[in-house]
Amino acid sequence: MRVRFHQSLGDLKEKLLVMAGMAEQAIERAVEAYRTRDLSLCDLVARSEQNINRFEREIDQMALDLLAMEQPMAIDLRFILAVIKINADVERVGDAASTIAVRVRDLQAFSPVDLPVDIPRIAGLAIDMVRRALQAFIEGDAEAAQHVLSLDDAVDRLNDSAYFALLNVMRTEPHWTPQALNALVISRSLERVADHATNIAEDVIFWVKGADVRHHMLLRDGRVNNGTGEAAPN
Amino acid sequence: MRVRFHQSLGDLKEKLLVMAGMAEQAIERAVEAYRTRDLSLCDLVARSEQNINRFEREIDQMALDLLAMEQPMAIDLRFILAVIKINADVERVGDAASTIAVRVRDLQAFSPVDLPVDIPRIAGLAIDMVRRALQAFIEGDAEAAQHVLSLDDAVDRLNDSAYFALLNVMRTEPHWTPQALNALVISRSLERVADHATNIAEDVIFWVKGADVRHHMLLRDGRVNNGTGEAAPN
Repeated sequence: MRVRFHQSLGDLKEKLLVMAGMAEQAIERAVEAYRTRDLSLCDLVARSEQNINRFEREIDQMALDLLAMEQPMAIDLRFILAVIKINADVERVGDAASTIAVRVRDLQAFSPVDLPVDIPRIAGLAIDMVRRALQAFIEGDAEAAQHVLSLDDAVDRLNDSAYFALLNVMRTEPHWTPQALNALVISRSLERVADHATNIAEDVIFWVKGADVRHHMLLRDGRVNNGTGEAAPN
Repeated sequence: MRVRFHQSLGDLKEKLLVMAGMAEQAIERAVEAYRTRDLSLCDLVARSEQNINRFEREIDQMALDLLAMEQPMAIDLRFILAVIKINADVERVGDAASTIAVRVRDLQAFSPVDLPVDIPRIAGLAIDMVRRALQAFIEGDAEAAQHVLSLDDAVDRLNDSAYFALLNVMRTEPHWTPQALNALVISRSLERVADHATNIAEDVIFWVKGADVRHHMLLRDGRVNNGTGEAAPN
């Protein structure tokens, strides 16, 4: 019974990671579509959103079944709750990819202009945060998850800079406003992806440490460690 | 034991409703601050965000304790999972209020202009959706929750209209771009509040019916009913 239960927990984790891979890829494709104006990538993003939504439902059902049938205690219970929460955030990463793809389609109606915002760079940082948060989840590494929290400020700053730079474009080159506004929405969507990575990291810490560090509360000892002595990846 | 358990479920629900009331009020205050340019309301919004965040953590802990200690079955398990999910959405309604309050502060630096967007109207619809979703939660009324889902399109349409109208302002009156851009972010935040109301309604249906209607899947019989025969409020 316990063996099968732990096998099921493994299946649940595996399925969540497959879904997360789809969501990451959707962001990458949406940003590549922005860079290359290749709308066929937007179609792929739209299709993967359907799959991600289906995975979300199936993962919730698996988690519910495990809670109902196995009545897990303590650490396993925390793990299943973390999966339920991470599941919701991963699905919203998929939503962000769709938002970006819609904006890329809209941009097609306007001539390409050189805007003062490095979308691929913001995307790179946000995707890196998602990957690190999921890696921390795979390894049950609260310290690596804590490190993800510290990365959020850089994305926030880039997004804020993009806002003011694009605002300035709109004021000085009003005929570029549609392009600048789409870029602004895309930048903001990527900033939300980073927020979801932060949420995932907080859920990993909740699971591993039983500490609730949401809303960027610092742990009392200033850092957390899962006891393995492993350093957070740099 | 069971009596105490059901008392605890009641406490959990009560606490979630108090928090939801705070989040609704925060949106109302942020929008009132937009309308009146009264920054003292923004301070209140910032303060309530702290309280909402604290409530979110406490509710999750209560839910976790109930799952760990009482090992609830079937419908109670679904209820607790619904609370955990609704909790996350209510917290994000509070975040939306904060985003709006930040934009209102930013607007203070610019002269007031008459923009083609009715923020209080969009806010009214979004808050109404949150209220109806929570009422459906209180009454365990899946039909009322289903009705909430049908209201989302109207908010989406208003937000889309606001986007194009404000885009046009930016192109034709570039010196109004900062005001128009802030109004656009506020409108988008309210559209997200409506999305959270939709999520809450879906979780109510999940709890009451055991049906997963997320992503606006229609139930097979086209409508749901909680068996009380009550109609959804209009």
